[in-house]
Amino acid sequence: MAVLEAAPSVATRTTGSHMTHRVREILSWYESDNPGTKTNLSRLLNHGRLAGTGKLVILPVDQGFEHGPARSFAVNPAGYDPNYHFEAAIQAGCNAYAAPLGFIESAAARHAGEIPLILKINNHDVLHDEKDPMPAVTASVKDALRLGCVAIGFTIYPGSAHAQTMYSQLRAAAEEAKQNGLAVVVWSYPRGSSLSKEGETAIDVAAYAAQIAAPPGAHVIKVKLPSAHIEQPEAQKAYTKAAVPIGTLGERVRHVVQSSFDGRRIVIFSGGAKKDKDEDVFDEARAIRDGGGFGSIIGRNSFQRPKEHALKFLESIMKIYSGEMK
Amino acid sequence: MAVLEAAPSVATRTTGSHMTHRVREILSWYESDNPGTKTNLSRLLNHGRLAGTGKLVILPVDQGFEHGPARSFAVNPAGYDPNYHFEAAIQAGCNAYAAPLGFIESAAARHAGEIPLILKINNHDVLHDEKDPMPAVTASVKDALRLGCVAIGFTIYPGSAHAQTMYSQLRAAAEEAKQNGLAVVVWSYPRGSSLSKEGETAIDVAAYAAQIAAPPGAHVIKVKLPSAHIEQPEAQKAYTKAAVPIGTLGERVRHVVQSSFDGRRIVIFSGGAKKDKDEDVFDEARAIRDGGGFGSIIGRNSFQRPKEHALKFLESIMKIYSGEMK
Amino acid sequence: MAVLEAAPSVATRTTGSHMTHRVREILSWYESDNPGTKTNLSRLLNHGRLAGTGKLVILPVDQGFEHGPARSFAVNPAGYDPNYHFEAAIQAGCNAYAAPLGFIESAAARHAGEIPLILKINNHDVLHDEKDPMPAVTASVKDALRLGCVAIGFTIYPGSAHAQTMYSQLRAAAEEAKQNGLAVVVWSYPRGSSLSKEGETAIDVAAYAAQIAAPPGAHVIKVKLPSAHIEQPEAQKAYTKAAVPIGTLGERVRHVVQSSFDGRRIVIFSGGAKKDKDEDVFDEARAIRDGGGFGSIIGRNSFQRPKEHALKFLESIMKIYSGEMK
Amino acid sequence: MAVLEAAPSVATRTTGSHMTHRVREILSWYESDNPGTKTNLSRLLNHGRLAGTGKLVILPVDQGFEHGPARSFAVNPAGYDPNYHFEAAIQAGCNAYAAPLGFIESAAARHAGEIPLILKINNHDVLHDEKDPMPAVTASVKDALRLGCVAIGFTIYPGSAHAQTMYSQLRAAAEEAKQNGLAVVVWSYPRGSSLSKEGETAIDVAAYAAQIAAPPGAHVIKVKLPSAHIEQPEAQKAYTKAAVPIGTLGERVRHVVQSSFDGRRIVIFSGGAKKDKDEDVFDEARAIRDGGGFGSIIGRNSFQRPKEHALKFLESIMKIYSGEMK
Amino acid sequence: MAVLEAAPSVATRTTGSHMTHRVREILSWYESDNPGTKTNLSRLLNHGRLAGTGKLVILPVDQGFEHGPARSFAVNPAGYDPNYHFEAAIQAGCNAYAAPLGFIESAAARHAGEIPLILKINNHDVLHDEKDPMPAVTASVKDALRLGCVAIGFTIYPGSAHAQTMYSQLRAAAEEAKQNGLAVVVWSYPRGSSLSKEGETAIDVAAYAAQIAAPPGAHVIKVKLPSAHIEQPEAQKAYTKAAVPIGTLGERVRHVVQSSFDGRRIVIFSGGAKKDKDEDVFDEARAIRDGGGFGSIIGRNSFQRPKEHALKFLESIMKIYSGEMK
Repeated sequence: MAVLEAAPSVATRTTGSHMTHRVREILSWYESDNPGTKTNLSRLLNHGRLAGTGKLVILPVDQGFEHGPARSFAVNPAGYDPNYHFEAAIQAGCNAYAAPLGFIESAAARHAGEIPLILKINNHDVLHDEKDPMPAVTASVKDALRLGCVAIGFTIYPGSAHAQTMYSQLRAAAEEAKQNGLAVVVWSYPRGSSLSKEGETAIDVAAYAAQIAAPPGAHVIKVKLPSAHIEQPEAQKAYTKAAVPIGTLGERVRHVVQSSFDGRRIVIFSGGAKKDKDEDVFDEARAIRDGGGFGSIIGRNSFQRPKEHALKFLESIMKIYSGEMK
Repeated sequence: MAVLEAAPSVATRTTGSHMTHRVREILSWYESDNPGTKTNLSRLLNHGRLAGTGKLVILPVDQGFEHGPARSFAVNPAGYDPNYHFEAAIQAGCNAYAAPLGFIESAAARHAGEIPLILKINNHDVLHDEKDPMPAVTASVKDALRLGCVAIGFTIYPGSAHAQTMYSQLRAAAEEAKQNGLAVVVWSYPRGSSLSKEGETAIDVAAYAAQIAAPPGAHVIKVKLPSAHIEQPEAQKAYTKAAVPIGTLGERVRHVVQSSFDGRRIVIFSGGAKKDKDEDVFDEARAIRDGGGFGSIIGRNSFQRPKEHALKFLESIMKIYSGEMK
Repeated sequence: MAVLEAAPSVATRTTGSHMTHRVREILSWYESDNPGTKTNLSRLLNHGRLAGTGKLVILPVDQGFEHGPARSFAVNPAGYDPNYHFEAAIQAGCNAYAAPLGFIESAAARHAGEIPLILKINNHDVLHDEKDPMPAVTASVKDALRLGCVAIGFTIYPGSAHAQTMYSQLRAAAEEAKQNGLAVVVWSYPRGSSLSKEGETAIDVAAYAAQIAAPPGAHVIKVKLPSAHIEQPEAQKAYTKAAVPIGTLGERVRHVVQSSFDGRRIVIFSGGAKKDKDEDVFDEARAIRDGGGFGSIIGRNSFQRPKEHALKFLESIMKIYSGEMK
Repeated sequence: MAVLEAAPSVATRTTGSHMTHRVREILSWYESDNPGTKTNLSRLLNHGRLAGTGKLVILPVDQGFEHGPARSFAVNPAGYDPNYHFEAAIQAGCNAYAAPLGFIESAAARHAGEIPLILKINNHDVLHDEKDPMPAVTASVKDALRLGCVAIGFTIYPGSAHAQTMYSQLRAAAEEAKQNGLAVVVWSYPRGSSLSKEGETAIDVAAYAAQIAAPPGAHVIKVKLPSAHIEQPEAQKAYTKAAVPIGTLGERVRHVVQSSFDGRRIVIFSGGAKKDKDEDVFDEARAIRDGGGFGSIIGRNSFQRPKEHALKFLESIMKIYSGEMK
Repeated sequence: MAVLEAAPSVATRTTGSHMTHRVREILSWYESDNPGTKTNLSRLLNHGRLAGTGKLVILPVDQGFEHGPARSFAVNPAGYDPNYHFEAAIQAGCNAYAAPLGFIESAAARHAGEIPLILKINNHDVLHDEKDPMPAVTASVKDALRLGCVAIGFTIYPGSAHAQTMYSQLRAAAEEAKQNGLAVVVWSYPRGSSLSKEGETAIDVAAYAAQIAAPPGAHVIKVKLPSAHIEQPEAQKAYTKAAVPIGTLGERVRHVVQSSFDGRRIVIFSGGAKKDKDEDVFDEARAIRDGGGFGSIIGRNSFQRPKEHALKFLESIMKIYSGEMK
C-alpha cells in the first residue's frame, strides 16, 4: 500500500526547496489535477506544525449550524465569536480551518493569508428531524475563491434516500472547484433509513463510505473512526473469506485507508463528540497514525474547552502524528 | 461580546464625516463584503431618527399577502394603499421600509431617495394550510436593483420539511445580492411539523434560528422574541450544564444576539400580533435594548392604528432605543 | 380610495392628445414600470368602444382547452374557428382579446394591429381530475412579443397545494414581460383542497386572491364575482370587528377593489358560466361599475350565442360601463 | 368548416409552380409561422404519392421502444433493421417517415434528401407499468436539425397525472423548433388514472385531445380514431343539447377535425394495432377522407407484413385519399 | 442480419491502412456521427489483441462504488489500487478500460495514450436499498475530454420507476458527447419494482433493454446474458407466434443482437459475478461469438484473481473471439 511503505514520520526536505519528499509523493497521487489544485493541496500539507510531514490536523467549526449554538458553544462561550476559532487554529498550528460561509466571511479579511481555509459549502441542521438527511447547499465555489480558500468542503450521507442527489451535487461542485484550482474535501458520513445506528460506524460501511467519496472527485476524505461491527451480510462474507484484519482500531484505519484507492487519497478521521479523557483521543490518534491514516479533524474536543487547554491538547495530538510523542 | 461592550446609546460622530464610531464598528464586522454592500448597510444604519446609533426600527408590510387584506388593513383602511406605508415610515423616521414587489413598485418612484427600501423577495400565504410551510419567490435581486432598494429580504422557516430548499434559495439570492452590492435581511421563523407550537418561540429554537441565518450570508437577522421554554432535549442539557441565563426577556435577547456570531451580526426582533397595551411593546423594546439587541421590526402594531397614533407610538420606541426614554 | 374618487364615467381628453385624464391617472399608478409597459397598458385602455373611459370589456377564449371543445363551442359551432373570436372582439369594440398560443397564432397575422392581444401563457384542462390544480405553461413571453401582443395572461390558483409554484412561475414570467415592455394580466382563481366549494367565491377569499396577485407583479387582476360567504374563521373576526360592508354585490366589488392596493390596480371580473337571462349579467355589470370595478372579462356569455346577439349583448354591457345605460 | 369546403381530391397546380391551390390554402392557416416552418410544412405536403393533395400518409416506427422489439418486428424480422423502414416509406411514396433518434441516425445519411423525416423526440416504454404514463425526452431539436428533419414529433398523454409536465415540455420544444424553422407534429393520446379504458378513445375525449394539442403549438395533430362513447358527464350534456352528429365514424372524424380550430390544423389518425382484414383499414381511411381528415399514420399495419404486401396495402390507402379508389 | 453475414473472424486489412474491412463496415453503421466520434469508435475497435477483428473485450472496474470495496477487492487486494486495473487492462491487451471518475483520474496521466478509456459518468451504490434504483451522475462529458477518454459510459435501469429520468439524462449526456466527438457506451440493466428477479435477465426483457438503449444514442450497448425465461405476457405471444429461436444461449445472443437495429449497433455482454469454473465463462464467450455478439465486458472474473491468472484467462477469451481457440 503506497502510503504505508512510504510514510516516514520525519519530514525530509528536497534540495533547494521547502517541499519534502513525502509531500511530493502525496501530490503525485493527484496526477490528473491541474497545477492550481496541486498548489492548494500543497498549502494544506505545508502549513502549521505538521507542515511537510504528510499528516494533517484540521479545526472544523460547523456545529453551530449542525447542532445549534448553545449545544456547541455554551460550555466555552468564547466560541460564539467566529474569530475565536480562526485564532485558535492559527495559534495551535493546525493545517487548516474549515467552516461554513458566514463563519469564514466574518473573519477572513483580518486573517488573510494566516491559515489555509476550507469553505464548507453544504450544511444540515437538526430542527427538522428526518430519517434520511439531505443537507442544504449554503455557499458556492465562487465564494471560496473570493474568500481566499484553498478548498471546498462537502458532506455526503451514504445510506440516505437522498444520497444520489448529494453525490450529483458533489460532482458538480467538485468539477467547478477543480477547474478553478481548488481542492475538494469530502465529509462522508453514513446515515439513513437503510442503516442501523450501529451500522453508521461499522467497518464495512466506513470503508464503503471512503470508497464512495473518491469517484466523484474528493482529494481529501473525512470519515468517522470505525467499529468492528459489520453491517451488510454480503460484505460479511467477503471479510470472512479474505480474513481481512479488523480486530484493532489500527487495523480498521488501515482497511479504510486501503479502501481509498489503496492509500492514494488523503484520509482523515473525525474526533466525534467531546471525550471525557484526553488520553482516549490520544489513543485514537496513535491508532490513526499506526494504521496509516493521514490525520484528524477535531472540532468539539478542541473548542469545547478553554483555549489554553485546547492548544496544549492539539499540540499533543500533533506530536503523536509527527512522531515526537509515542 | 463585541456589541455589548461597544454599545453607547449616544451616537458620536467621527471627525469630518457624518459616520459615527458605532456605525463604523458595525460595518467592520462585515469585513468580507464589498464596498457596495457596506454602503447599503450604512444607508440602513444612517437613516431616520436612529441614524448613527447602531439601532434600527423598520416598518414591514407584507401582511396583506401573508394573512390577507381584511385581517391586515380593515381596522385602519388607509393601509390598503401601499403609499400610506411609505409615508408612515418616512414620517416616523424609520430606518427602512420593507415590503413585497407590488407594494414597492406602486410607490417607489414618487418616494425615490426618501427612505431605504428592503424588497421582500419571498412570501407565503395562508389560503393553503400546510404543516411544513414553503414560501414562493415573488421578486428578484434585479427587481431590488431597478427599484433602488438597499437590501433584499428573505424568509426561512427552520424546522419545516422544506427548510433545506429555503436555505439553498437564500444562498443563491444572497450571493447575487452581494455581488451587486446589496445587503441581505433574513426573517428566520421556526415553523414546521417537527416543532411544537410552544417550540416555535422557545429560547433554544430562537437562538438556533438566529445562528442558522448567518452561514448562508445574512447581514441582518430578524427573529421573534423568545420565551423561556426549551424545546430540544439535547439543548436542555447544554443550557443546564452551562447555566446559561435565560430567565428574563433581556437575558434571552442577549443569548440570541450572542448566538449570532457573538453579536457580530445585526439582530432585530419582530413585534408580533397587535398588542392591546402599548406599554407591553415598550417593555419589549427596553428588553431588546438592554439585552444588546439592535432594534425592532414593527408591522401590525404600527399600521393597525390611525397614523398620528402610530407616529407617536414609533417615536416612543425609537426614544427607548436612543436612550432618550428609559 | 383613489379609483372611486376619480372615476368619472365620461372620458375627458387632455389637450392636444387622445389621452384622457382618467387614463393618465390610471397609468400614474404604475410608476415603477418602464415606458414600454405603460404604452401597452394605454393600448388596452384606449381601444374599442370604452377607449379612454378607464373601463374594460375583454373577450377571453380559453375554454376549448380548459373545458373541452364541445362543451365550449357546440352550441354555436362558428366558435370552433379561432378567427371567429378575433372578429367578434373587433366588431364588438372590446378592449382586448385574450387566448392561448394556438388560438392567437391562427389569426394574428390577418388581424395584425386591429385589436390588443393578451397571450394566455398557462392553461389547465380537466381530463385529469385533481383537487389541487396546477396549470401547464403553454407559451412564452417571447411568443407574446413575436405575435404583437400587449400583455401576457397568467392563471394562479390560490389555495392549491401547488400555489407556491404558480406564484414563482408568475414572478419569473412577469419579470421577463416587464423587461420587454409588456403588461401582465393575472387570473386569480381560488381553488384547492383547503377551500370548500362555497369558499372559492367567498368575499374574504376573493379579496385575498386579488391581493395575492399584486405583489408578484400583476398590472391587471381578474377575479370572480364574490358571494357574501366568509370562509376563513380568522378573517371573519376582522370583517366583524371593522364592520366591513359586504351585503350587496356592489359593496363586495368595492371591497375587492380596495384589497387591490386601494384601487390602484385594474381589477376586472369574470362573467362565469353562461347565464339564462342577460339581465342578470347586466345587473352584475352595474354592480361592478357602481362598486368601482374596472370592467368585465366575458367569454361563454359572449361566444355561446349567435354573433349578432353577442354583439348586441356586449354593446349593452359597454353602455352600462360608459354610463350611456343605467 | 374551412377544410371541408375546400377539399378537392384532385390537386390543381398553381401557375408556374409545383404548388397546388390546396397546399397554398393549408399553409395559409399557419399565418404566424416563419417561412422556414412553412417551407418544411410544404415539404411534408408535397412529397410522395399524395404530394399536393393536402392528404398525408406517414410511416411511424417507434414500436421497438414503445412495445419492445419482438412484439414489433418478430413477425417480419426485416423490420429489425431501421434501414428497412426508410426504404419502405420511400418506395411506398409516403409523405414522411417518423422515428426516434437512433432509428433516424442509423440510416439518415444514406437516404439524405429522399424523404421528409420527423424526429420523434420523446418516447415511452412498457417495462415499468404505470397508470399515469410520462414519456422520456430522448432527442432534441438540435438533433432534428443536424439530421435534416422537417419536423419534431412529440407525444402527450392528456388525462395522465403528469400531463401538465408534458404540455410544458412540448411548449418549450415547439418554441425552439419554430424558431429554427421546423414543424411540430403532436401525438395526442388520452391515457391515465382519470380515464376508463373505453374513455381513451371516447369521442369527447378524442376531440378534447385534438383541441389540447393545438394551443402549445402543434402544426400537425395525430389522434386515435374515436368511438361513439362519451366519457365525461359534463360533455354528454353539450353533445346532447347541440345534437352533435357522432353516429358514424365519418361524423366523428368530422367532429375531431372541427375541434382542431375548425379544420385549420392538419389532423391525421393512427391505424392502431395490426388488423386482420385490410378492408377494415380501408374503411377507416374512407371514413377519415369523407369526414374531412387529412390522412393516416400507419405503423404496425405496414411493417408487420412482408414489404411487397405493405407497399400494395399503402398504395390502396393512398388511392382512397387521392380519390382514385372509392 | 448485417453483423452475421459479414463477421469473418480473421481481420483483413484494407490497402495502405491499418484499418480492416470489418472495422470500416462497423463504422459505416454510424453514418450520422461526426468524424470525431467515428475516430474514437475506431480507437476502441483498433486497440489491443482484438484490434481490427470487430470484437471487443473491455475491463470495467466500478464495483468498488457499486458493491463496496471489500466485496470487490479483498480477495485480491492489489485491486484496491486503481493503477492495478490500468496495468492489467493494458497487459491483457483489452480494447478499453472503463471506470468512474476518481479511478480514471488516479492513473490517467501516467498511462496517457496507452489504452482507450471509457469514463463511467453515473454510478449506483447499495448502502441505500431501493426497489426502483436511480444512479447518481458522478462525472461529466467535460471530465471525459480533459482525461483523454474515447467514450462516456452510462447506466440505465429499464423497469425502474425512475427509468424516464435516466433516459433523459442519457440523452443529454449523449448529445454533448457526440458534439464533442466522443462515443457513448450504455449499460442497460433491467431492474425495478415491475420486474421479477427472474425477469431481469429474461430474453424478452434483455432484447427490450438492448432496443431501448439505441434510440437515445448509444454506440455500444452492454447487456447481461439472457435466460430463456419470458417475462411479459404480451411478448410471450409474439415469441410463440413467430417461433423466435431462443433455446440456446447462442440463439438468445443472436436475438439480442438482432434487437439492436439488426446487429447495426455494437452489443457486448457482461460476465456477471465471479464464476467458479473458467470453462463456464469460456462457454459463454463461445455462445456470444457464435450468436454474433461483439464481445464481453469482464470485471469481477478478471480482477478477483491474481494478475497472472487474470491475464491468461483474458487471453483465452480473446482467442475465442479471434477464432484462434474454438
